[in-house]
Amino acid sequence: MPDRRSESRTHMQSDVLTTRERPFAVGVDVGGTKIVAGVVDVNGQVHSRIKLPTDTSKPEMTLRSIANAIEQAIQAGGASPSAIQGIGLGIPGQVDPQRGICLLSVNLNWHNVAVKDWLEQRFGLSCALENDVSAGALGEYRYGGAANADMVYLSLGTGIAARVIHEGRLYRGSHGLAGEIGHTIFVPGGPRCSCGGLGCLEALAGGPALARNAETRLQSGQTSCLQETFVRQGRLSAEQVFEAARLEDALALQVLEEAGMHLAYAINVLAMTFDPQEVVLGGGLALEEGPLTEVIRRGLHYWLEQTPILREILTPESLRLSALQRDAGILGAAALIHI
Amino acid sequence: MPDRRSESRTHMQSDVLTTRERPFAVGVDVGGTKIVAGVVDVNGQVHSRIKLPTDTSKPEMTLRSIANAIEQAIQAGGASPSAIQGIGLGIPGQVDPQRGICLLSVNLNWHNVAVKDWLEQRFGLSCALENDVSAGALGEYRYGGAANADMVYLSLGTGIAARVIHEGRLYRGSHGLAGEIGHTIFVPGGPRCSCGGLGCLEALAGGPALARNAETRLQSGQTSCLQETFVRQGRLSAEQVFEAARLEDALALQVLEEAGMHLAYAINVLAMTFDPQEVVLGGGLALEEGPLTEVIRRGLHYWLEQTPILREILTPESLRLSALQRDAGILGAAALIHI
Repeated sequence: MPDRRSESRTHMQSDVLTTRERPFAVGVDVGGTKIVAGVVDVNGQVHSRIKLPTDTSKPEMTLRSIANAIEQAIQAGGASPSAIQGIGLGIPGQVDPQRGICLLSVNLNWHNVAVKDWLEQRFGLSCALENDVSAGALGEYRYGGAANADMVYLSLGTGIAARVIHEGRLYRGSHGLAGEIGHTIFVPGGPRCSCGGLGCLEALAGGPALARNAETRLQSGQTSCLQETFVRQGRLSAEQVFEAARLEDALALQVLEEAGMHLAYAINVLAMTFDPQEVVLGGGLALEEGPLTEVIRRGLHYWLEQTPILREILTPESLRLSALQRDAGILGAAALIHI
Repeated sequence: MPDRRSESRTHMQSDVLTTRERPFAVGVDVGGTKIVAGVVDVNGQVHSRIKLPTDTSKPEMTLRSIANAIEQAIQAGGASPSAIQGIGLGIPGQVDPQRGICLLSVNLNWHNVAVKDWLEQRFGLSCALENDVSAGALGEYRYGGAANADMVYLSLGTGIAARVIHEGRLYRGSHGLAGEIGHTIFVPGGPRCSCGGLGCLEALAGGPALARNAETRLQSGQTSCLQETFVRQGRLSAEQVFEAARLEDALALQVLEEAGMHLAYAINVLAMTFDPQEVVLGGGLALEEGPLTEVIRRGLHYWLEQTPILREILTPESLRLSALQRDAGILGAAALIHI
């Protein structure tokens, strides 16, 4: 059996040649319920997409699910393994990219897992990992066609977090926590957040918060087309609230109005602190223009009107949706290799 | 008459030798009412301090006041002009450090003034300028003994602004406006700010806001030891509010309580966005521990208790006052040469 580790090192040392000789990267978006992996070329074209459920029973089982997804993605991508430069992974949690370790991921049930070493040994390819939102920001910068060196990327999904690209590089902060606006308290004493805080932005405007707010309104007797679904299922999802809002359901629109106004204030604060060239919305709640992004744009318009200095930083056009759409996870992870 | 411009260029080209051969810098803190200039050595020792009134009648007159202060500071500093590496200036406004131009300073009544060229021609020494709060942050980083590469510097005075040192460099943002938390609206529809906004942090917690809040409370009939001064002068200063608070005057303490709580929230937001190693308070309102910093520390303690992620970034000890005290202006400006 060849020594794969030394082979991997050789790849890493030949950086100058790799992009031409090995134009592909494998991008892996590791989620708490599913793993999405794909082969990506240097132009950001996605050549395969594999989706597998995440086995979170034990860290090693999770690593095996990841390895399966990678293997299948390479096969489906039709790229010769020798043309693959490396494997990039976006992880929902705190990572140490230098050491290639996931320090903590509540979703994956991981604590200090040496992801990089395990995968490099398994595949003989160099491997890089990052926090999933950081990967999303880098993917947007690398493949999103923005060409803006200063960008705030705000990911709206189950979780809410911002990441900043400054002078073409990820701004990590001193603990890798820069941009944690989702866990900044906006309403002291407000609803409980996954982090334990009360009234964090994420607990006001993340996916589960939207569902919960709709449920609370239904329970207090407000009428809505969501009533029937709620009675039938005993709960709602953010997607269902979005669908109802598209049908102009008043309750759903009110839920998105509240959340969108909080998000617009978050964008105001992020712009006034980081002074970016643009703000890009990513994540599952911002895949397309719709009732939520409409409220956010209206909210941003209000802050632009109210704040002279903000007008020197942003225009309404400085806020845009991620160009990467549903491939953002794969592309973000692949950017860790291609950047 | 020697060609001073080419002499100046020669100095700029001999960067490698300058620190040893020319260990001194002139630091100039250009304010709207006074100019403070001093000669500073590479260790941050201040060898002279000259204070002159600022002539803001015409831009050229302002430049002449600055030149007078520099000349007197050099004479008083006892350093041979040939031992001076350059002149640094902290300017209250927007500057373009690359071109050496002050784009806009309301306080100085300046609009596109070519400060660097004018002074280099006048003195035959290389000249650098920066926004005054940016200079303050760099001064703290260079001479403050912090040795922390990631720092949020929050200046509390007539104006309020934060500046960020990231990996040992000033984080400017894409328009030089990063850290403008003072002009971020904290109370929509609140008191009018110098920027034109309503309810900006500066309009709630800057020096003039403290005085105005005390006046409003007096006018509404609240009793205070400030009553007599207010009746006599028709107005109050922030200093008088501070003095009254030190005497445990209830009105003054309430004014500082309100302002301090807003400032603590600002520190929370700055820490959650920039993820620094420490937060340093500078400016005239934070020269020493007292009633205001006490409220700010209590407020930060509250946010630390409430916000799990903030506890991964800061401890109560991560907040400290600038080590540079009253020389912060001179040292910040000198840091532009010594950094």
